[in-house]
Amino acid sequence: MGLARYPEPHTSLRDLPSDATRAARAGASGIWAGAPARAVVRALLAALPGAPVAIVLPDGEEVGNGVRPIARVRVADLRTLLGLLGPASDLHFGDAYADGRIEVEGDFLGLLESVFAAPSDGWLARLGSHWRWLLRHGNSIRRARSNVHHHYDLGNDFYALWLDREMVYTCAYFPTPAASLEDAQVAKMEHVARKLRLNAGESVIEAGCGWGALALHLARHHGVRVRAFNVSGEQLAWARERAEREGLADRVEFIDDDYRNVRGTYDAFVSVGMLEHVGREHYGDLARVIDRTLAPHGRGLLHSIGRNRPLEFSPFVQRRIFPGAYPPTLREMVALLEPVDFSVLDVENLRLHYAHTLEHWLARFEAHRDEVARRFSERFVRIWRLYLAGSIAAFRAGSLQLFQVVFARGRSNAVPWTRADLYRP
Amino acid sequence: MGLARYPEPHTSLRDLPSDATRAARAGASGIWAGAPARAVVRALLAALPGAPVAIVLPDGEEVGNGVRPIARVRVADLRTLLGLLGPASDLHFGDAYADGRIEVEGDFLGLLESVFAAPSDGWLARLGSHWRWLLRHGNSIRRARSNVHHHYDLGNDFYALWLDREMVYTCAYFPTPAASLEDAQVAKMEHVARKLRLNAGESVIEAGCGWGALALHLARHHGVRVRAFNVSGEQLAWARERAEREGLADRVEFIDDDYRNVRGTYDAFVSVGMLEHVGREHYGDLARVIDRTLAPHGRGLLHSIGRNRPLEFSPFVQRRIFPGAYPPTLREMVALLEPVDFSVLDVENLRLHYAHTLEHWLARFEAHRDEVARRFSERFVRIWRLYLAGSIAAFRAGSLQLFQVVFARGRSNAVPWTRADLYRP
Repeated sequence: MGLARYPEPHTSLRDLPSDATRAARAGASGIWAGAPARAVVRALLAALPGAPVAIVLPDGEEVGNGVRPIARVRVADLRTLLGLLGPASDLHFGDAYADGRIEVEGDFLGLLESVFAAPSDGWLARLGSHWRWLLRHGNSIRRARSNVHHHYDLGNDFYALWLDREMVYTCAYFPTPAASLEDAQVAKMEHVARKLRLNAGESVIEAGCGWGALALHLARHHGVRVRAFNVSGEQLAWARERAEREGLADRVEFIDDDYRNVRGTYDAFVSVGMLEHVGREHYGDLARVIDRTLAPHGRGLLHSIGRNRPLEFSPFVQRRIFPGAYPPTLREMVALLEPVDFSVLDVENLRLHYAHTLEHWLARFEAHRDEVARRFSERFVRIWRLYLAGSIAAFRAGSLQLFQVVFARGRSNAVPWTRADLYRP
Repeated sequence: MGLARYPEPHTSLRDLPSDATRAARAGASGIWAGAPARAVVRALLAALPGAPVAIVLPDGEEVGNGVRPIARVRVADLRTLLGLLGPASDLHFGDAYADGRIEVEGDFLGLLESVFAAPSDGWLARLGSHWRWLLRHGNSIRRARSNVHHHYDLGNDFYALWLDREMVYTCAYFPTPAASLEDAQVAKMEHVARKLRLNAGESVIEAGCGWGALALHLARHHGVRVRAFNVSGEQLAWARERAEREGLADRVEFIDDDYRNVRGTYDAFVSVGMLEHVGREHYGDLARVIDRTLAPHGRGLLHSIGRNRPLEFSPFVQRRIFPGAYPPTLREMVALLEPVDFSVLDVENLRLHYAHTLEHWLARFEAHRDEVARRFSERFVRIWRLYLAGSIAAFRAGSLQLFQVVFARGRSNAVPWTRADLYRP
């Protein structure tokens, strides 16, 4: 009955190519002033007591923490260094890293994890919190489409480089940490299907279906009909093509529309990785959609990145990665279901599975970094490396959570007696 | 993968002795006015559209609902009838039932379930809600002791008549609906132990330990040391005597003190059926106790009756059964853990298991009703019958929930990889 200890990191960034020479070059062209720079560095390191990090100034001087560093952060110039002390320091860090004005030698992931684990709940996570509202992107129906386009329409070929075979871009479920990413994404879809207790012939609505893997899995393996909504044109094209090719187009309908326009009544409602993009101000809309569409005996599942305490995504993630996104606390997720009298049946936190999923993604991404750089740019590669590695660190450090919430109508007794059936071979 | 449909009620009150003659007698002595009485009855029935219930007036006239009744409610006099329309109607119903001014013939449980399932979210549940604050009993350390004494110190012999062998007075866990109550209470303790992922030699704090069954189970079967807190003198005496008799007194310490006085550091924190008695205004106290006592790698479990939407217990339950009690929503339970940065790992809703547990209790209680009446009074028997049957109805109708919430510190990665180990034979 011992704890399944979190496994050693699946991948490490220790062996990533170092760009120290480039940083030194950038530094050489900047304005430089030794004394203020050292004061800034001491302030930065004071916010990370005991973190095994050293900062290397443009003149080559290394300032440490009294601990043997696992990573060295080379900063090219004073302007970059000062930006790290100001508001939205993580956005400055991200942009400077993207430009090569900051380089990290050594254990990049370990560095980020130290930052997220800092007592302030993370330098990246906290310093910018008071001006985060400036970054907020709304999620009106029009805006939601543009926000989704920003991230998900980068090209299916790009995502195919580093996602699993089924193109599932959400947290996988690893029955054991040694499972492959391909197997873990199938296991996740099966875990979700079991939690929904689907019966052959039932109808399912999916809000936010990505490249359609879950909808197709449910139709193929559980004999249900699925209507799957999405507003990413690139993803929908892929999903429809796949449904045709696999002979499932008569059972799975991919619909290019906002979740708020779902109509009809269904036996199950499922949404995996969309709630992050809904925005708190629209949780009532989502609740009304579920209330309007779920049959009296229906079951629902919401799967979302979350937090232990309310906090926006970092400015870097909001600005460069997911405009309009917000990771709810579990309190906020279940509060959504209160006004419509839904009953929460089951909550599972899969935080460490998301860290592990991201480790697989990052390793595959790095294996294709040259292709990505050719297709986009070096800067793009570096932004995505920081996003993936930063996400691993945030899930490992407990700054981000992953909640799966199963629910039914308050009056429904068509609910599972126990959860044992989820774990039958 | 079909749903485990909720089984047919384990027990029915159809065969309870009818006290119709007594009601008729009481009616004969009351003031009577036919026309206003019929108006009141029509108003009552209008609040229960389609409910298979008839009301029998003191003059013997039966007023129905257009549906074939499964139960007839005989009302002795106009005063009693009028009380059912006023505020705290459920308290009036309870007191009138206790006195024999109201009698129920037929399916008592079915009647109560119809009431809880009514569209208004229940006549008993709703009508009195606007003056419920008048009934609130505080839970200061002194008051908490007196509130607990009110219910739990009725005498161990009384509870032994109808609880299981281990004297567990909280929701059982039935691996299948056919399991015995004895087996289901042991299964519950094992389910809780597994959720806590205990290792031999670890230390556990239990807040609110009842007659000590869980503490003794954990020590005996999981090799842990337990410090168990309670403020019910009767329960503690029993628990200590049992620990001595079973040779576990060196590993289980039963402490006569309030949970707010817990000191020390422990590997696990568990509280089963105490949160209902804590009171919302003291959730912060409980959170601070957990934060103060849980080791960095520790695991915790809160098990509590709850609601889908915020609502006090009915005036009847607050006044006659559990002074100071409040059933939180899941939102309120997890909100308790936010300020201290705990991470919710797992939530399970065992609502139908509590309905089933109560069915066992009620059947055993009815089998001993004559002993209970001799020891206390006929009125006591009727209050407890209403409390037990009303609770079954409330859990069946979804008016009450039962949440088990597992948590760990936000920074702890010593958390289970999956939940599969909970379901290994």
